[in-house]
Amino acid sequence: MDRYDIAIIGTGPGGLEAAITAKVRNKSVLLLGSAASSDKVAKAHTIQNYLGLPQISGADMAKAFLDHAKDMGVEITPDKVNAVYAMGDFFSIQGHADNYEASSVILAAGMSAMKPLPGEMEYLGRGVSYCATCDAALYKGKTAIILAYGEEDEAEAEFLAERADKVYYLPQYDYAGSLGGNIEVTIGVKPAAIEVAEGKTTLATDEASYEADGIFILRQQIAPSQLVPGLALDGNHVAVDRSMKTNIDGLFACGDITGTPYQYIKAAGEGNVAALSAVSYLQQLKK
Amino acid sequence: MDRYDIAIIGTGPGGLEAAITAKVRNKSVLLLGSAASSDKVAKAHTIQNYLGLPQISGADMAKAFLDHAKDMGVEITPDKVNAVYAMGDFFSIQGHADNYEASSVILAAGMSAMKPLPGEMEYLGRGVSYCATCDAALYKGKTAIILAYGEEDEAEAEFLAERADKVYYLPQYDYAGSLGGNIEVTIGVKPAAIEVAEGKTTLATDEASYEADGIFILRQQIAPSQLVPGLALDGNHVAVDRSMKTNIDGLFACGDITGTPYQYIKAAGEGNVAALSAVSYLQQLKK
Repeated sequence: MDRYDIAIIGTGPGGLEAAITAKVRNKSVLLLGSAASSDKVAKAHTIQNYLGLPQISGADMAKAFLDHAKDMGVEITPDKVNAVYAMGDFFSIQGHADNYEASSVILAAGMSAMKPLPGEMEYLGRGVSYCATCDAALYKGKTAIILAYGEEDEAEAEFLAERADKVYYLPQYDYAGSLGGNIEVTIGVKPAAIEVAEGKTTLATDEASYEADGIFILRQQIAPSQLVPGLALDGNHVAVDRSMKTNIDGLFACGDITGTPYQYIKAAGEGNVAALSAVSYLQQLKK
Repeated sequence: MDRYDIAIIGTGPGGLEAAITAKVRNKSVLLLGSAASSDKVAKAHTIQNYLGLPQISGADMAKAFLDHAKDMGVEITPDKVNAVYAMGDFFSIQGHADNYEASSVILAAGMSAMKPLPGEMEYLGRGVSYCATCDAALYKGKTAIILAYGEEDEAEAEFLAERADKVYYLPQYDYAGSLGGNIEVTIGVKPAAIEVAEGKTTLATDEASYEADGIFILRQQIAPSQLVPGLALDGNHVAVDRSMKTNIDGLFACGDITGTPYQYIKAAGEGNVAALSAVSYLQQLKK
């Protein structure tokens, strides 16, 4: 497996700035996330205070950022990350589509406004999971529920349905797909709570209840504490110092995930610092 | 005297970003510094990693920043700041041209690469001073040396020469002025050390020695420790936390003055955070 110098998780302003700065410093970069930059950027109305880009729409800003990254030879690998494991002098990154290795990692995954469902944290790993493709092998002859938050989750449902007997697919986005066969799609269902008892997982919703052998919650972002075992937090955010170091050697963070204010230029500035701190770390690692 | 909500010292990326963010939040802003943004920006060659402005020259970047600020109604007051005094619920700011008041202050003055001269710190306030116009009244019938670092210092020399008997003007920049009368201009002199004894100040240089009643060193930037009495430092830099607070209530800092890396996007990101922290401080102050 190729080992990248720096893996960057997230393609908002923090992740993209980290990527171009790492490129300027001649590091090999794996940039994981949405090819369309972050939703939060693309859907923003006029942004007034990103210095140098006056009165710009979110869509134009996302384009300016992505064009800049492309100019610098930065490629985006459109995979969602399920977990990051510190292995000593490298990191193992578990994506939904593939696994990766990197000598250092920068978390730039943003902050999800969504709160965990009642029961979600309690039963995580014991009926609740965040990656259907990762666990598909365990579902031969079984049933599963998928709470889906984006179009890309449809492929994951199809992959799971090749093993599982039955998949309940509950899209939490504007569904326009064509899933069928042993995948039962129900639109407009709001999840309420998860309960696991006697090996069966039950999802209560505002309408029916769903029972299966497990549930997959495919959010755009995973809570930082779940993403990286052992990561120190400061409230809901990743704890970092002014050099954007976390408590784990070689692991850095930038942007909304490190705390307020949730501002584009703040995220970009932190991405720059995180990348340069990662470069310093790589130099030390060589010695 | 008008009391501004936020005074910002420095017109590099940190100061300009702080100013536009403060404007977005409807605060009254006093922005003090060079009308041409920072020298460091304007003279930079191609900048590759300011996200959204790919492959841009320093001159074009300075123009983009200044145009953005102008668009937002931000005006630059082209005065140099000599000292900032915390007065409790406001700050008194001593400029070379005027004095100002503000409820909060953001230091964005950059880092001078210049080291103090031998003797400079030792004799500061006892023969060495940073503001000729501030001390002019004390120089009636006396002699003074001016170490000058920019064209704007010529006006200060003329003002001092109206009181003083004689002014030795030693430009440390490309001098093309027309000072005369009781101002003796000598070009190309490199200062070496300052000595004060028996009320007389002596400047040793690579050529002659100059003796006078005092010396004025008119650098673009003053060491942060001299600029704000009581300001806590971290090495050469202003000590700040992640919200860009200093140890003094209502005083914030951003950009190079707060530490490495010396990068434009890092400075801009910090300017944003400093401005929003100042806005929070102003809200608390009202209560």
